[in-house]
Amino acid sequence: MATPAAASADSSTPGADPTPAPSRDGRTAAAADRLARLAEQAALAGADAVLVSPGADLAYLAGHSVGSHERFTVLLVPATGAPHLLVPLLERPGWDGTPVVDLGVTTLTWADGQDPYRVLADLLPADSRVLAVDDHMPAVHALGVRAAVPGSELTLAGPAIAELRMRKEPAEVDGLLAIGAAVDRVHEAVGQWLRPGRTERDVAADIAAALVAEGHRTADFVIVGSGPNGASPHHEASDREIRPGELVVIDIGGPGPDGYFSDCTRTYQVVGEPVDAEQRAVHDLVRRAQRAAVEAVRPGVTAQDVDRAARTVIAEAGLGERFITRTGHGIGLEVHEHPYIVEGNERPLEPGMAFSIEPGVYLPGRFGVRIEDIVVVGEDGAIPANRAGTEYRVVGG
Amino acid sequence: MATPAAASADSSTPGADPTPAPSRDGRTAAAADRLARLAEQAALAGADAVLVSPGADLAYLAGHSVGSHERFTVLLVPATGAPHLLVPLLERPGWDGTPVVDLGVTTLTWADGQDPYRVLADLLPADSRVLAVDDHMPAVHALGVRAAVPGSELTLAGPAIAELRMRKEPAEVDGLLAIGAAVDRVHEAVGQWLRPGRTERDVAADIAAALVAEGHRTADFVIVGSGPNGASPHHEASDREIRPGELVVIDIGGPGPDGYFSDCTRTYQVVGEPVDAEQRAVHDLVRRAQRAAVEAVRPGVTAQDVDRAARTVIAEAGLGERFITRTGHGIGLEVHEHPYIVEGNERPLEPGMAFSIEPGVYLPGRFGVRIEDIVVVGEDGAIPANRAGTEYRVVGG
Repeated sequence: MATPAAASADSSTPGADPTPAPSRDGRTAAAADRLARLAEQAALAGADAVLVSPGADLAYLAGHSVGSHERFTVLLVPATGAPHLLVPLLERPGWDGTPVVDLGVTTLTWADGQDPYRVLADLLPADSRVLAVDDHMPAVHALGVRAAVPGSELTLAGPAIAELRMRKEPAEVDGLLAIGAAVDRVHEAVGQWLRPGRTERDVAADIAAALVAEGHRTADFVIVGSGPNGASPHHEASDREIRPGELVVIDIGGPGPDGYFSDCTRTYQVVGEPVDAEQRAVHDLVRRAQRAAVEAVRPGVTAQDVDRAARTVIAEAGLGERFITRTGHGIGLEVHEHPYIVEGNERPLEPGMAFSIEPGVYLPGRFGVRIEDIVVVGEDGAIPANRAGTEYRVVGG
Repeated sequence: MATPAAASADSSTPGADPTPAPSRDGRTAAAADRLARLAEQAALAGADAVLVSPGADLAYLAGHSVGSHERFTVLLVPATGAPHLLVPLLERPGWDGTPVVDLGVTTLTWADGQDPYRVLADLLPADSRVLAVDDHMPAVHALGVRAAVPGSELTLAGPAIAELRMRKEPAEVDGLLAIGAAVDRVHEAVGQWLRPGRTERDVAADIAAALVAEGHRTADFVIVGSGPNGASPHHEASDREIRPGELVVIDIGGPGPDGYFSDCTRTYQVVGEPVDAEQRAVHDLVRRAQRAAVEAVRPGVTAQDVDRAARTVIAEAGLGERFITRTGHGIGLEVHEHPYIVEGNERPLEPGMAFSIEPGVYLPGRFGVRIEDIVVVGEDGAIPANRAGTEYRVVGG
């Protein structure tokens, strides 16, 4: 891996590169508005500037991001004044042809031998004191900046950025719906791969290939939780052999071409016997809970209300203590983002918010059931990104 | 993706999971010593405690890590006293069977509704004030901790941790040599895939599959820089068609089963014509520079000396300004780590340090040449992790 004198030539982008891919004009228009609104939010929050490091926030605000690595790349959005982008010298060509060119963002570079934090400090408005950093900024950069700006204090920009990212624009909604349809196609084909006698890992490999074939940039996660493994929401895919008759939780997704994520869970019964007598009943219960939560979604209802809609159904069946997860998480350029669909979140839902609805019942040592769709809040109710059927399916015959 | 009430069930681990995989006893013994040495380093640096979030540092110190996500997981290593591990409740089972069980590290959990930063604050020794955080800790966690510990200040633990990670133990060296041999096998087979008329992207896909087949967990980076693209160290793999006769920079690698990285570059000529008249001469020059730097490696020599050994050869040929990168970077559980082989780094090399040696010459609009091996400092000189030949090769016939 080349390491340029001026900056680290970390040409690889391990992990997701969340750069949106739609038309440059579309990205530019959206991004210009976002930068202006962020500056307003920053001022409201008492920050002198917002500093955004590589990741989903940078992709969202500048229309492009790079792999995160040890060299400092940062977008500076002052409360008043023009934004600046500071990048390592050898990263400069990678920003040509990206929206920053049209956004009125001045791109500057720093070279080996310079202190990038000092270079940034010199770009800040005079008397800048309160610096809001994005949630993911590595400590080495956050503390480096703080050290270079005497008298400064760091604060978090996450809440201000979330106010923007939570409210999806039409092109973002389109992206979520398109990649939702793609993961639906993978779920519909699962019976080709999910058969008794195969290991979870082998099934996961087939599903991962299908996710990519159907249009995902990468298979970001492929959970195959068979039998008792389904009772642990954290279980990924092991060498356990799938047995006839058991339930298997398949929770899969990844970023689409524009960086927007899919995330969809279905729980299937593998053909054969023995079949735990409660499988169908628990599956039906979770299905009803999931549908109740989806039907509860509309503008003005709180995130907490949606969680309670699912939880009530399961609690009334006496299994409330087995619903050990919150109902959902926001989704967009990251698989987990705001708003979280959880008890305690009293934020009213608004059109354009997008999140998962994924209640489950988890019976340790036996099985688990989870059913998940992504929905977007529409004017009149939920717009589903996933339409694959949720009925009880026996597969692998 | 399930999101448990108690914690985020981010079961996926997007990005590298650097968890070492060798024997538990081996990992435990190494880790216990590392924790003790880190506590010493922390005390020397005036910190009351070191806080380590998920990533390579956590894998190194605790023998295990998890995917980084929005819920707080942290290893607390106080300057005096026992270490603690704080994890989200539903992540707890994932830590069974890992070295923390035997390390004398108490593992505690926090559940939804609790403030994880307050839970951590209560674990700190009384009057803790200076908290050293790992370089990668996300700002949301670093600032969350700071807010929960009145009067505290944050500092960086990176230098203290680097003092440990730079000095590879025998099992770590073995891991680097083994994965180095694996990437060698991929380079030796490159002629099967690198042919005129194919795109860089298609060649990269074949190489990525081979990296995995030869034992890498993932193909972390696959740079295919053909013709003029080779002159940009940051270029990855595009849809450009490879043309007869041109040079192609192939820079590839990824983590092995134990999490230790490979990273190896060769520059090949594709069969055919026309051939730029200077290709062979420049390739030969870089080869000599690379060999000079490898031969300069021995205990007591500085990192800077090694950089200068390569740079002198290239400068004497009049191409010093085209060697636009530093000579190398350390490698281990991360592809880039300390020590950096660069002008200005006067640290004397010691046995066990591991780094790349990768000089290059970059001619914009024409071609680039880079040749890279990983070496480990031995008692008498460099121990190469890569032994694939560096002679000028014409492939793809």
